Amino acid sequence: MGKNLIEALYPILSKRRATSIHQLALKKHRLARAAFVLEGKKSIQALLAADYAIQCIVGTPSFFVENQDIVASLPKGTEIFEVKQALLSGLGSFVHNHEVLAVAAIPKPTQPDPSPAGITLALDGIQDPGNFGTIIRIADWYGITTILCSRTTVDLYNPKVLQASMGSFVKVNVHYVDLPLYLQSCNLPILGAMLDGKPVHDFLFPAHGILVIGNESHGIQPAVQQTFTAAIAIPRYGHANSLNAATATAVLCDNWKRIRSE
Amino acid sequence: MGKNLIEALYPILSKRRATSIHQLALKKHRLARAAFVLEGKKSIQALLAADYAIQCIVGTPSFFVENQDIVASLPKGTEIFEVKQALLSGLGSFVHNHEVLAVAAIPKPTQPDPSPAGITLALDGIQDPGNFGTIIRIADWYGITTILCSRTTVDLYNPKVLQASMGSFVKVNVHYVDLPLYLQSCNLPILGAMLDGKPVHDFLFPAHGILVIGNESHGIQPAVQQTFTAAIAIPRYGHANSLNAATATAVLCDNWKRIRSE
Repeated sequence: MGKNLIEALYPILSKRRATSIHQLALKKHRLARAAFVLEGKKSIQALLAADYAIQCIVGTPSFFVENQDIVASLPKGTEIFEVKQALLSGLGSFVHNHEVLAVAAIPKPTQPDPSPAGITLALDGIQDPGNFGTIIRIADWYGITTILCSRTTVDLYNPKVLQASMGSFVKVNVHYVDLPLYLQSCNLPILGAMLDGKPVHDFLFPAHGILVIGNESHGIQPAVQQTFTAAIAIPRYGHANSLNAATATAVLCDNWKRIRSE
Repeated sequence: MGKNLIEALYPILSKRRATSIHQLALKKHRLARAAFVLEGKKSIQALLAADYAIQCIVGTPSFFVENQDIVASLPKGTEIFEVKQALLSGLGSFVHNHEVLAVAAIPKPTQPDPSPAGITLALDGIQDPGNFGTIIRIADWYGITTILCSRTTVDLYNPKVLQASMGSFVKVNVHYVDLPLYLQSCNLPILGAMLDGKPVHDFLFPAHGILVIGNESHGIQPAVQQTFTAAIAIPRYGHANSLNAATATAVLCDNWKRIRSE
């Protein structure tokens, strides 16, 4: 009798394959292979619902036993591998992922709409992956479907960005552009979040426009500031020097939506 | 001739002392010794301005050369140690701290005001240190000076909480209390952040009251919900299931301050 009484449902992940998945934590490997890793059951369900091309799924034996519905919803030909729980978290970026991860193809970049409807976000060099992911989740809460990013903004497929977005990255179109150039050629009102801008509580927000959020330390670059229709600010009642970039984005979007839907 | 041409300004940190500082990353050691570690020049300046009892300062030789003003503002008797840059980040919790850290005494807990003026925050089990620190920064932005925490809320002196608060922790009084008991005996309006609450864009906020924010996964415990005067919610325009706890706190405070200062 062999050691394992329970036969594996799927092939065991090879060492070579494990290395190749682990490498996708780095942007250069994601770019070279146009693929990214997504961890956790809920995120993978969001991925499936949004028609991303899943290349392979790696899960623990118990995950596959308990989630036959997810396996059934995978496109034909998706590779499935089993891995021991202790090995799974070493493959990805999160020690708390004890169930499953997927490797999916990065969709081909598309050109952003030159004049998108409603609120569009423009991020000028957001560096913290948690901030970017949180901003994507905020965009999804406020029904914002387009985010324009300067090329200095952290990569969308960074595992921490995807994690912080809580699945919302499948609902929002993210475009990396030459931000000053895009804004110069754009006919929409452009509102920049600046500490010395006009207070937003009674600002007359336009129906359609772009909200620019700057880098965590250096703010918005001068070439982008030159494109502003107006600079706006969150009124301060206490002493803190600033708000976190994601926090500020939420407060500004909330004021914009409130005023435009009154 | 010796190896070191530049003589150290201050004593070199001993190995025993280094271990004792490193241990303060853990709550049990902070509690036992009523002391905490704070990293980075700006945070330490905030600490000095707020009259915390600094027990010792550990910095790189170049930090002391460039920051004689900080050294001069230390109370007499503060111990000062030099350490090589490569060792400094190993002492604390942040690899990007390359300059200085301080060990300070945790102030003795005080009783919260039973009827605080303006907005008071109550946190029911916030677990993520980054969220708690960001909430402290938000409180400081909106002029909120009291935060009540359930005993299940992450420790204020966790290094990641202090870091995310960006120095604002010195401006806000944080009290750990039996939250249901405090709220039951409190005569102020109590507003709970709930996904199915009344929309805040036109909610008639009171002049004084308590805003309750729940745990990231489990929300607000039933015993606290029973004390609510009203449940309030941020209007949603898109698809995300929820907003991050710190993000939601900011949007709710912004609406409260806007309506009360109109």
